[in-house]
Amino acid sequence: MFTRIDHVGIAVADLDAAVALHEREYGMPLVHREVVASQGVEAVLLDVGESHVELLAPLGDDTPVGRFLAKRGPGLHHVAYGVEDIEATLAALRGRGVRLIDEEPRTGIRGTRVAFLHPSSSGGVLTEIVEVGGGH
Amino acid sequence: MFTRIDHVGIAVADLDAAVALHEREYGMPLVHREVVASQGVEAVLLDVGESHVELLAPLGDDTPVGRFLAKRGPGLHHVAYGVEDIEATLAALRGRGVRLIDEEPRTGIRGTRVAFLHPSSSGGVLTEIVEVGGGH
Repeated sequence: MFTRIDHVGIAVADLDAAVALHEREYGMPLVHREVVASQGVEAVLLDVGESHVELLAPLGDDTPVGRFLAKRGPGLHHVAYGVEDIEATLAALRGRGVRLIDEEPRTGIRGTRVAFLHPSSSGGVLTEIVEVGGGH
Repeated sequence: MFTRIDHVGIAVADLDAAVALHEREYGMPLVHREVVASQGVEAVLLDVGESHVELLAPLGDDTPVGRFLAKRGPGLHHVAYGVEDIEATLAALRGRGVRLIDEEPRTGIRGTRVAFLHPSSSGGVLTEIVEVGGGH
């Protein structure tokens, strides 16, 4: 059902410093940078194998990532798994009793179709699924 | 330098429930289960693409994962990147000013050679590197 780890999402307070760490110290190619206003973040994607690291800087304190940073500080925020058919996957997860934040897919970074599962039935882990299109 | 996301480590209070979630609801094949006494955990690996999910249940309250659970509850604990040559990678990271928890590799799950970087210079993320041998 899940084809890969699509990305790990990391909440950061200083986006430029986090980009420098991952690009220079870790040697990961930066492949995308986007303000995702609907999620209240500026996000950067870096490549690692078949996956990405997604750095997330909040656009304000009163956003999900802003509240996460205030409560827990910078660190791992969520994990995202790739799926081939997001509607079928959501239906299967719903049928197995997994609680969803998004009953229907919404548009994520780079125009991908994404949905979040609720941490309460995902072992405390904010979990995202991403429909993987033709591109990487 | 980093060839892939080797795994995401998830701290869990109830290992059997977490295994059931990942195996049954998420459909990930369970590939390994091991008590890693040196790290104070019982660990389970499940396959997803070229990566794993590593579930970590503490062997006691006074262990790193036991303290993590007491402070933060179940959730994402660390991310591990695959490397081809762990000594060369540690030397390169040290040269770039990255602070290390392990100056030398130690033995991790399934006999792999691993080392942890310190969250203080890794953007608040507990980060592990794993030398990837012949197997998956």
